[in-house]
Amino acid sequence: MIRITPVIHVVSLLLGIIALFMVAPLGIALWNKDVASTEAFAITMVATLVLCFFVWRITRSKQGGHHLRTREGFLLVTSSWIVASAVGALPFVLSGAIPSYTDAFFETMSGFTTTGASILTAIEPLPRAVLFWRSLTHWLGGMGIVVLTVAVLPFLGVGGVQLVRAESPGPTLDKIAPKITQTAKILWFIYLGLTVVETVLLMFGGMDLFDALTHTFGTLATGGFSPRNASVGAYDSSYIDWVITIFMVMAGLNFGLYHKVLNGNWKDIIKNTEFKAYLGIFLLSTLAISVVLLRVYDGFAEALRYAGFQVASIITTTGYATADFDLWPMAAKGVLFFLMLVGGCSGSTGGGPKVIRLVALFKLALNEMKYMARPRGIFRVRLNGEPVKKDYLYSVSGFLLLYALCLVIVTVIVSAFGTDFTTGFTTALVTVGNIGPGFGLVGPAMNYQFYHPFVKWVLSFAMLAGRLEVYTVLILLTPAFWSRR
Amino acid sequence: MIRITPVIHVVSLLLGIIALFMVAPLGIALWNKDVASTEAFAITMVATLVLCFFVWRITRSKQGGHHLRTREGFLLVTSSWIVASAVGALPFVLSGAIPSYTDAFFETMSGFTTTGASILTAIEPLPRAVLFWRSLTHWLGGMGIVVLTVAVLPFLGVGGVQLVRAESPGPTLDKIAPKITQTAKILWFIYLGLTVVETVLLMFGGMDLFDALTHTFGTLATGGFSPRNASVGAYDSSYIDWVITIFMVMAGLNFGLYHKVLNGNWKDIIKNTEFKAYLGIFLLSTLAISVVLLRVYDGFAEALRYAGFQVASIITTTGYATADFDLWPMAAKGVLFFLMLVGGCSGSTGGGPKVIRLVALFKLALNEMKYMARPRGIFRVRLNGEPVKKDYLYSVSGFLLLYALCLVIVTVIVSAFGTDFTTGFTTALVTVGNIGPGFGLVGPAMNYQFYHPFVKWVLSFAMLAGRLEVYTVLILLTPAFWSRR
Repeated sequence: MIRITPVIHVVSLLLGIIALFMVAPLGIALWNKDVASTEAFAITMVATLVLCFFVWRITRSKQGGHHLRTREGFLLVTSSWIVASAVGALPFVLSGAIPSYTDAFFETMSGFTTTGASILTAIEPLPRAVLFWRSLTHWLGGMGIVVLTVAVLPFLGVGGVQLVRAESPGPTLDKIAPKITQTAKILWFIYLGLTVVETVLLMFGGMDLFDALTHTFGTLATGGFSPRNASVGAYDSSYIDWVITIFMVMAGLNFGLYHKVLNGNWKDIIKNTEFKAYLGIFLLSTLAISVVLLRVYDGFAEALRYAGFQVASIITTTGYATADFDLWPMAAKGVLFFLMLVGGCSGSTGGGPKVIRLVALFKLALNEMKYMARPRGIFRVRLNGEPVKKDYLYSVSGFLLLYALCLVIVTVIVSAFGTDFTTGFTTALVTVGNIGPGFGLVGPAMNYQFYHPFVKWVLSFAMLAGRLEVYTVLILLTPAFWSRR
Repeated sequence: MIRITPVIHVVSLLLGIIALFMVAPLGIALWNKDVASTEAFAITMVATLVLCFFVWRITRSKQGGHHLRTREGFLLVTSSWIVASAVGALPFVLSGAIPSYTDAFFETMSGFTTTGASILTAIEPLPRAVLFWRSLTHWLGGMGIVVLTVAVLPFLGVGGVQLVRAESPGPTLDKIAPKITQTAKILWFIYLGLTVVETVLLMFGGMDLFDALTHTFGTLATGGFSPRNASVGAYDSSYIDWVITIFMVMAGLNFGLYHKVLNGNWKDIIKNTEFKAYLGIFLLSTLAISVVLLRVYDGFAEALRYAGFQVASIITTTGYATADFDLWPMAAKGVLFFLMLVGGCSGSTGGGPKVIRLVALFKLALNEMKYMARPRGIFRVRLNGEPVKKDYLYSVSGFLLLYALCLVIVTVIVSAFGTDFTTGFTTALVTVGNIGPGFGLVGPAMNYQFYHPFVKWVLSFAMLAGRLEVYTVLILLTPAFWSRR
């Protein structure tokens, strides 16, 4: 049986933490003497904090701490993300920046899930406080709201492993530290460190603090929101492009690897199957697209710069653009389409199906062929040099089918509202994959404003399902989940 | 080690049988006093038979019959299909009907693999003998060249099970009879029976023998070639549409089920998971599209007729058309797109990934979720009321990944030659899935003529890989297959 009260108890806590982060845009609004934004953030923040406090008090158990069960964890994580988006959307509406609540919810969910799909037609005219909050949702969602909470509030640690697992991208969560609270702290520490370094590097390239911070949020969370209409292309700086390219690639790596590097454990990284496959795909795709782009840009260095940026942006599911890649030759678009199906590494902030899942299944398929060729042979799928458990492969296969099913359902719904097929299919790909811009009407120079409100709600949940890796959301729809047995 | 000689020995036999079937178009050419076609078929047939006879004699083993190993079976099946298409293309070129050999090979491979994708811009002006041969390749490929050979030449029976398995669609080959030669005979007997019945029914609807036979070939093989430019739409007869709809649905069923019906074994059919899922998908999709088509056609009966025909045509991967479905509302096209990813039943003449594989993986995913909700529970995937072996699920998962990989590779190659994305992606879907017409430039009112010759060769092998269920073809590309160990 699912107990609702303890779930609500923890959700109120998580929401309170999210609300506390509104102090940053509130400060910016005050600094800029922006009355509308100040009111919007102040009202939302205070109201949310007060509400959360009372709900938290009322739902407290008399025996002290709640011990959440695994099943309740899925409900907790999914509902936290929905509630966070519902509340996070309020400042957009209250400040008048995004008048429609549907649009604001879409934009906020797109932010938290690090999708980066936007309904905004003109970004630059918006108040800075609002733009900062928009980018901050990326940063919070990138490493995970639950992971953050577990890191700051150690008493949540009981049952925290399941929670973090339900939220974290990829099929594996390496044991970085013996305790989940420690793991969460280490992850956020690395994340913070990278944030500082990238911000400083971008400021060297001529960005002011605001632009540097917001773009760092978008990069490290593999989000894609930019305060500029032309995205990163607005700066037209080779230095900035390369800095962001490198940090996007880094954000797409398993954060556990950084911890290993910090501990001097290089061996594990060189043995890491996913690391090698991810870098291999990145380098090969960049090279292939660079060659194609020689027709479009002047010289190889230019082609490499634009190709590297876009490949990193798509494979990590960031969604930044320095060029309207929808206008590139079809061969280049074909490679980008392929990359949309890959995604970042497990344990990264990237979306998509994740490299390791595809590698595992590809190795399984090769194994099947070896077995067909020599029926008496014994073949095992190996990852990181070690044989893989059967349950792992089952989970991966099931995941990929559900992922594909989500894509098909979203495509059919979007198509039913009359878009062309390219737009419909890539809309599904880039929302479920948390990428952001696709091809056609949702290309990098376009936005999601034109969609029917119903489609926007569907896409909001598609982004959520993608970010929480399908299972965590879909499990709530199964009768087994709710049954009392 | 792979022994080439015995493989060539059996290939020459298979090719000889294919050549013998050219007697039918040769007869038609003679009857019509069509000199060009008579020469084309006579030369091809005689030359092939003579060549096959000598090759067969030379490669005969001194110890009597060859015992082919499993591994050699894959090579045999794949090379038989390539050689059959290479030789089957000759009459098209020699008669002048299709001057380019690339085009002729594409058309023949499309015929044997029952894809039904055509490079012909005008079909009706072609000689009847040529059109008959074009449809006959469907019929031969539908049930399988190897199955046919095993049925007619029992002495091939040694090792025949592996051969038939390598050629037959779907992951399961039900044991219909204790001996594979008997199984092959029963399958071809049912196939022949259905051919006679459909031909007669179509003649009742006003078709002449030629049209009735060629359309029956296209229906039962789930091929899709029609001797008419407007496909089945040319007859504009509700009766003919429904007859073909019903026979397409029947051709998409596991032929083992007919054997069970003939033996009065109804229970197994009602318990059959794939049967129920297939009919369910067909009925639901037809209903959904009918509702959408109410805007397009007069009344529900008309909408139902066009919807039912097109749903049957796409899910069974036949590819006939009674309407230009590329002009239908996007909601209807969305459902058809979904059906392109399903395919017929295992053991049918249909292509695509097959219903049972998707059902198995879907149940696996559901199981995973049950397991996540209750980690201590024991859940098993059941098909036909019985628990499924783990190896089966592995094979299915590996297959679907390779299938998806084929789709992506073909999409990227086709796109690289400059088509739009819709065309590129659906070209991959409808060639690997052996469907035929897709959306965009390869829509039902279009053809494949405009593609670059290189793309046509790639698509020819995509069709072959799809028909032989990926593994049988791709296994030849693995080093393990050729290694001497």
